[in-house]
Amino acid sequence: MNTEADYLNQYDASRFPSPLVTVDSVLFTLHQQELCVLLVERANHPQKGYWGLPGGFIDMARDDSTRATAMRKLTEKTGVSPSWLEQLDTFSGPDRDPRGWSLTVTWFALIAWADCEPHIASVSDARWVPIARLVDYSLAFDHQKIITAALHRLRQKTMYSLLPVYCLPETFTHGQLQEATEVILGQSIQRKSLIRRFEASGMFEETGESMATGTRKARLWRRKPGVDIHLFSRNLLTD
Amino acid sequence: MNTEADYLNQYDASRFPSPLVTVDSVLFTLHQQELCVLLVERANHPQKGYWGLPGGFIDMARDDSTRATAMRKLTEKTGVSPSWLEQLDTFSGPDRDPRGWSLTVTWFALIAWADCEPHIASVSDARWVPIARLVDYSLAFDHQKIITAALHRLRQKTMYSLLPVYCLPETFTHGQLQEATEVILGQSIQRKSLIRRFEASGMFEETGESMATGTRKARLWRRKPGVDIHLFSRNLLTD
Repeated sequence: MNTEADYLNQYDASRFPSPLVTVDSVLFTLHQQELCVLLVERANHPQKGYWGLPGGFIDMARDDSTRATAMRKLTEKTGVSPSWLEQLDTFSGPDRDPRGWSLTVTWFALIAWADCEPHIASVSDARWVPIARLVDYSLAFDHQKIITAALHRLRQKTMYSLLPVYCLPETFTHGQLQEATEVILGQSIQRKSLIRRFEASGMFEETGESMATGTRKARLWRRKPGVDIHLFSRNLLTD
Repeated sequence: MNTEADYLNQYDASRFPSPLVTVDSVLFTLHQQELCVLLVERANHPQKGYWGLPGGFIDMARDDSTRATAMRKLTEKTGVSPSWLEQLDTFSGPDRDPRGWSLTVTWFALIAWADCEPHIASVSDARWVPIARLVDYSLAFDHQKIITAALHRLRQKTMYSLLPVYCLPETFTHGQLQEATEVILGQSIQRKSLIRRFEASGMFEETGESMATGTRKARLWRRKPGVDIHLFSRNLLTD
């Protein structure tokens, strides 16, 4: 075979056995002051009846990347695209799936509860499970380990950014962002550090509306379109 | 099929076509005050004659994870295990490899030049290429993009840790660590910030030896065995 074209004409993919490849996502939201993760009850073998992360096989005819697979699978379950989606890690090995050597490319995602609740409640086989209740669920494969890795990433990034805003509705108050941040970190934060970070980020604009909170009104904010997340060099908790 | 055992007995992996899966590593070192990356000239199609990252297919009979594949492939080229190895990202899609839909799990690694130079010089088809010279090489697939991602990760982590120590020989001086850090970041740093970080990390111990540097002697240090890398919350460059 002298040319690449000759090589490709005779190329036979079945001579190179590949591992079983899946894409799984850890989607978080906040609901009733609890951090929740989306789980799906497995309808089929293997591990039928166990709870797993939303995900599945790559559709090579439709997906142009594992990001596209993650997005497609999440949208099937929630009815909408997640507000935030980033790659986590790849988990692999001969023992994590009983079908054989397997590899899953995992993604970490955030969404506002209200955006997907109608779809999940009415048509989806998925369920929001508070992090504190995961212990009551039999999780499939190594999905507990994947959730733990995603939770670590979420908390780390929350210390250095305003990432929790992707769990909030389109318009929100400073108080809602503080609560979201505190629920994710599992501890209280200084309101004034958060506001300083909020103002320095350049990520937000006022809507002009406000919301009644107790005896006073709080201004409503939204993300500016097209403005990326700002990473701060200081830790919200310690600096 | 009522039981998982029945299901697994009848399971046929070929019914679930998988993408082509590879593992590729970006191995960096420092040599003559230049940051270098290890490249291998491709001996076979596809992209024969192009330069690519050390890597290849998972050997499902031998490798118990993609980390093991990365380690095996790097050791083949360098003769030794890298001092540092961490997962980067997965790159995927229908167009990145002419053989079809493919996915590569990438790893980011560091090694001391002296540790592997004898092997690379004598028996390997690999070559250290200074980052500034990459432009002279025809790189295979999307390997330029992968190197760019690894370089970004290396520089980010260097700002928040003492990661460059994994590019140094087993024993080294403060001056060598400063030089390595400056070469990686492409700018000079405050010696006293580096020393403060070095002392606070708890990662190092004196060897009792010293090295002649110009008119004076500099103490030699080594990593304490079993002590993990320390991540600082402050940026070496800006805080």
